[in-house]
Parts: sequence; C-alpha cells; structure tokens
Amino acid sequence: MYKEINGGVCAPKGFRASGVHCGVKGDGNTAKKDLALIVSDVECAAAGTFTTNQVKASPVYLSMKNVADGKAKAIVCNSGNANACAPQGEENALKMCEETAKILGLAPEEVLVASTGVIGHTLNIDAIVNGLPAAEKALSYEGSEDAAGAIMTTDLVMKQISVELELGGKAVRIGGIAKGSGMIHPNMGTMLSFVTTDAAVEGETLKKMLRDVVRVTFNRISVDGDTSTNDTCLILANGLAENALITEGTADYEAFREALTFVLRTLAVKIAKDGEGATKLITCNVTGASGEERAEVIAKAVIRSPLVKTAMFGSDANWGRVLCAMGYSGEEFDPAEVTIGFASRAGSIEVCTGGQGLEFDEDQALKVLSEDEVEINITMQEGTNSVTAWGCDLTYDYVKINGDYRT
Amino acid sequence: MYKEINGGVCAPKGFRASGVHCGVKGDGNTAKKDLALIVSDVECAAAGTFTTNQVKASPVYLSMKNVADGKAKAIVCNSGNANACAPQGEENALKMCEETAKILGLAPEEVLVASTGVIGHTLNIDAIVNGLPAAEKALSYEGSEDAAGAIMTTDLVMKQISVELELGGKAVRIGGIAKGSGMIHPNMGTMLSFVTTDAAVEGETLKKMLRDVVRVTFNRISVDGDTSTNDTCLILANGLAENALITEGTADYEAFREALTFVLRTLAVKIAKDGEGATKLITCNVTGASGEERAEVIAKAVIRSPLVKTAMFGSDANWGRVLCAMGYSGEEFDPAEVTIGFASRAGSIEVCTGGQGLEFDEDQALKVLSEDEVEINITMQEGTNSVTAWGCDLTYDYVKINGDYRT
Repeated sequence: MYKEINGGVCAPKGFRASGVHCGVKGDGNTAKKDLALIVSDVECAAAGTFTTNQVKASPVYLSMKNVADGKAKAIVCNSGNANACAPQGEENALKMCEETAKILGLAPEEVLVASTGVIGHTLNIDAIVNGLPAAEKALSYEGSEDAAGAIMTTDLVMKQISVELELGGKAVRIGGIAKGSGMIHPNMGTMLSFVTTDAAVEGETLKKMLRDVVRVTFNRISVDGDTSTNDTCLILANGLAENALITEGTADYEAFREALTFVLRTLAVKIAKDGEGATKLITCNVTGASGEERAEVIAKAVIRSPLVKTAMFGSDANWGRVLCAMGYSGEEFDPAEVTIGFASRAGSIEVCTGGQGLEFDEDQALKVLSEDEVEINITMQEGTNSVTAWGCDLTYDYVKINGDYRT
Repeated sequence: MYKEINGGVCAPKGFRASGVHCGVKGDGNTAKKDLALIVSDVECAAAGTFTTNQVKASPVYLSMKNVADGKAKAIVCNSGNANACAPQGEENALKMCEETAKILGLAPEEVLVASTGVIGHTLNIDAIVNGLPAAEKALSYEGSEDAAGAIMTTDLVMKQISVELELGGKAVRIGGIAKGSGMIHPNMGTMLSFVTTDAAVEGETLKKMLRDVVRVTFNRISVDGDTSTNDTCLILANGLAENALITEGTADYEAFREALTFVLRTLAVKIAKDGEGATKLITCNVTGASGEERAEVIAKAVIRSPLVKTAMFGSDANWGRVLCAMGYSGEEFDPAEVTIGFASRAGSIEVCTGGQGLEFDEDQALKVLSEDEVEINITMQEGTNSVTAWGCDLTYDYVKINGDYRT
C-alpha cells in the first residue's frame, strides 16, 4: 500500500533539483526554463530504459553507457534541442556531461544526460555550459517543479507525482517527473521521465523492475505513433530510507513495484492526456483476451488509429472504426465474439456486440463521449487477459502545432 | 509500350457501365450517385485482391467466393454504406448479388459485389433493389464516368484511367476506376478499384499478375494508416481484343503487366493525392537499399508518420522527422549512410547527409515544399533496390472530415 504525497522527484530523502533558463530555447524568452538538474546527496543505484528507434540521439548513447554499471548520482537535461542527428552531437553530449560533473564535483560516469526538442540542429552547448552554475546554485530540496518545468517543450501541463509506502517499518518514497507532447509512441522507453527513490535497492534489481513496469505503463501510451529518437526513462535509488535491501521474490519487492507502477502509470497517463493538441484522454481497455501480448497489440492499434482519434475528437460513437483498427492490428480474432462500449463519468453505453452494431441512444452516446476522459471498452470472449492503453484525440491543434514547429 | 487513351473501364471492347442514385446515401440529395454497374458483353476471366483486415465486410467474403473460379461477368457496387459489421450483412450482400444477376440475366456466381461507406449500419437493400432497373437501363459503352462517380464517398476527384497497347498486332485496352479518401492503408488489396480489359488471358494468370502489380502500386500508398474492412481490387478480362492468350514468361505478359502497372499506379497515386483533407501528394523514394522489402517498410513508415505529414502540410523541411520515422520502421540501418532531400517542380534541395543536417537555404526549401506534389528522396548506401511509396499531408480538413463523418 502506498499513498500519494507532494514533492515530485524531491519527495524521496536526499534529492535536490533545479530548473533554469540558459538559452537553448533561443527565442529570447528568459521565462522559459530549458535546463534541469536532479542530484542525489549520495551515490545511487541507477537504471534506465531507452528508445528502440534505430536513430538514437547522442545523449541516449551516452546515458546508456553511463548507467550500464548500475550506478549514478545526477541527471542533467535540456529542452529545446534533442541533440539528435546533430553536428557535434556526441561531442556536445559528452561536454554537457563533463561540465555538469565538474560543477557538481562528480566523475562524468556518475552523470546521466538527456535532451528533448528539435532534431538535427546543433546543440547550443555554450548556453548550457554558461547556464550550469546557475542551475547548480538553484539546486533545492523543493526544486522538483522547476526541473519538471525545464524539461517541457510543447507540453501544456507539468507532469509530476510522488508516493510514500512503508517497507519493514521504514517510510520509502518514490517521485517522478516526465515530459511528453508529440512524437509519442514509446517502445521500451518513453519520452523523458526521471524517477527518484530513497529505497535501498541494487542496480540490477532496479533495472529488471523498471523494464517490467515501463512495459505496462509508458509502453502503453501513444499520441501519434511516432517513436522518438530520444525516449529515456531513468531511475535513481539512493537508499537513504534505510529500508532492508529490496530483492526479487519478496513482499517488499512487490510492494515497491506496485508503487513504482502507480508512479509511472500516472506520468504516462498525464503524457497521453497532454498529447499535442489533445482535448481528451482516451483509455482503451481490452478484457477477456487469450493473451496479454495480443490484448496489448489490439489496444494500441485502437488508440493509434487516426480515424478513432478524430471520431473521439468529434464525440462520435463510431465503433466501426474501433473494430476496423482491431482488425488490422495484426492479431487474429473472431469479430463475432467482440463487444464494444464507451464510458466516461457521464455514463456508459454499449454499441456493438457479436461484431455487429446495436441500436443505441445517440444522445446518450454524445453525452458519454463529450467528456474530457473517455473509455473505449472492448470485451473478447477468449480468455482472462486484460490490458489498458492510453492515447488522446487527434485535433486541429495537433495539425497546427506540428505544421509549424521547426521554423 | 502503351499509350494513355480515354474511356476508363469502358475503353476496352465490350464493357458497359453505369452509375445512378438509388438512395443508399440517404441525405435526399438525388444528384449523389451511389450505385454502379460494370458489365461485360461476354464471359470474362476474373481475379481480385482483398483486404487483409481480420474484420471483412460481407461483400468482400461474397466476392472472394464468386471470383474463386477465375470467372465473372459483372461488378455491382454501392457507396454510402460499407455493409461491414452490419446486421443482415451476409444476407444483404447476397441479395444485392442475386438481384443484379436477375436483372442482367446472369447466374449469381457471375456477379462480383463491393460496398463502401460507413461501417456498422444496416445496408438499405431496398434502395439498391429498387435502383437496379435504372442502373441496368443506364448501362452504356460510354458509362465509365458515371460508374466512377457512383463509387465515390468523401473523394473530391474522380479516379479513372485507360491505356492501349499492341500485342501480336492486336490493340489491347485496359481501363480502371477507383475510390479512396480515408481509411487508406491497403494491405494486399486497396480501397475499391475495378479494372477491365479486352485482353485474352486466363483467370489464374490474371490472378498472379494482379497480385504482383497490386503489391507495387496500391499496397504502396497510405492516407492514414487505417487498413479498411472493404479493400477490393477486381479485374475482368473478356478477350474481345482477340490477341493470342497471354501466358507467363512471354513478351506479351511483360508488356501487359507493364501497362497494367501503369493503370494501377495511376489510380493509386490519384487516391493518395485525393486523401481526405489532403493538399499535397507526397512521394517517398528510397534508393540504394539492400532489399526491396526493407525499402518498402522504410518508405511506408515515412509517408505514414503524422509528424512528417504535418510538416509537409506546413511546407517545413523537417528532415529530422523523416529520419526518425525511418528509425522506428523496424528495419535496422546505419543513419550515417543516409542522405535526405526534398524535390518538386520548383526544384530540389539536399537537407541531410551522413545522418546529419546540412546547412541549407530555408527560402529555397520553402519554395520546393510549397508545391502540391512533393518528393522526399532518401538515399542509402547499401545496395541497389529502390521503392516508391505515395501518401499525402495531414491537415485541418482531415480532422474536420473525420471528426464528423458518421452522424
């Protein structure tokens, strides 16, 4: 059992964070933060998951290398430039790491690096180097919001969560921040998410757990089907909670995993809901499937479908598009065993059963679908596996934002 | 060698066609045609390719069955209702087939059936039955345009093409019509396309050739990544050109296949260009790949990417999104060996080489990308395979059309 608390990545003991404007977002607006630091007072067990895109940003390669030994102490991240496919990318990512290490008195291997923003432009490394002293100076045990703000690009809403649970009489905390928006279709990674905990847990254990949890949280959201070059999820565990070391196969492991799942799922859902241009969070529940993997494939095909997404934007109970997306997902199934319904806080309505349309009240359907959080519920009759995936609607604003992002 | 001629599906000898309003499009606008017939004077060799969606419309199943013997004489098609996942779907498709056969004096097995439109609503079979006499009466050797008009849904442009070639001193003609718009991401089929020819060719030969040609034409377009429940491509060959029977491995076979490829590619490109809400045709050429299949996977990932599509809408030379889409296509490659350029009738510009951005003239890029037909040219350095795929931009109007289609 865990409970939600305040504090974000600074909720766990011994973590400071900051976010400042350094000028990577080069529009002259100094109110826009673009450089974030998260630093632990003591060495941490660390783990990460990263994009599976063949084209990976330079900081992704560097963080993969630095986290490989299961240890780290700090995370540095800029927004405004992804440092992907960019001239001097490797060199600039390394310099960002080294300069951060220098100013924090750490070894470069203890620093994990992330970037987010436009692809293909040279990173303004001078702005970062010049901004690091201010970022270091601003480090605070209440700095999570500043850091969460500094990693945002076209995000409208800050994404932050923290929880507390008890393990062997000790209070253990987990906190996380994330950024999302567009190019969101994570595959074994996510956009950017940084998670801290004061739990005592070793790097290898953390790595396994993170992969398990990312699989059922971040990897089950999609904004536009575009898997980014920069997806990164990092976790630092500094052990200051003084709990007994968490090891696999114990009740503590399960309790901690449950809490971590809540943290990552909360951030994932926030990313889906704040997808570029989105007006609605769409939750697709597939139940009664014969396997978890196929339920996931089907749920993700539905939330990814542009026709389903535009129908949701229009509050149109167009279940035919849902069934159609299931049908091209790549999974075989019998349409005659499929039931589809829509639900929201305004009520619920069943619209298709046995693969065919039901007569339903269009006014009630409109009422259900006009809410800003809508569920698509798919029931199959083949087994006991359930999967939930999250997405958002496709709107004029998505087109507007992305028709004019780079220049 | 073939040359383009007029006449559409009525260009080949012995084919009549018609298109009338019967009322399936139930908005009371009798100017909207919704019932099409294509009829050959004599028995035809016939072949078809159909959607791979697990959820197939009732007419798809029926046409698969009726074309299985490689013979047919007529095609009947309605727009306004897909007869997919609809109550009495099978029954209504069969009735549409039987009534058409009756009025034409044919056996039901000689009639192929197709439907397009909204999913999940009961087909207004009475309107079709009542409209068939008028459709039969309107049959004409100049009726291709009427038929092409009657299969349109949200299409803005009629899609029609015909060619003539010479085989052994005989003039052989091929004609085709198609409809596209949304839910376009064909897989071993297409939306709807009906092709006629007066060539002498047997059903089995025709089937093999059609599959080969569909693979490199219709299966290389995407409007929105949604594979429809109704994709159907049918071809009828009545032999009235009196050419020697076309058999595999001959020069005639190659010449006919070349002409058929031109016909289907022309229709496919018309569908891509007239994608729902589209303002631009996007052609993605991948060259220098080590295999055709991987080149196709990469090209289709690029034209399917919502971020590439919105960038094209905004005339933004955002090549990072192109490289990113290549990277998540599922194919492995070395980004350092990739060159990307844009081209149109306004000129061309190279924007990325060795996986990194080039300095380029933004004004020139804007000029190139502001045209209504734009090429994305991707050069790899690993082999000699080339593939072209076609798509369109993602616009406000796509969202508008699909946010309010059903109700």
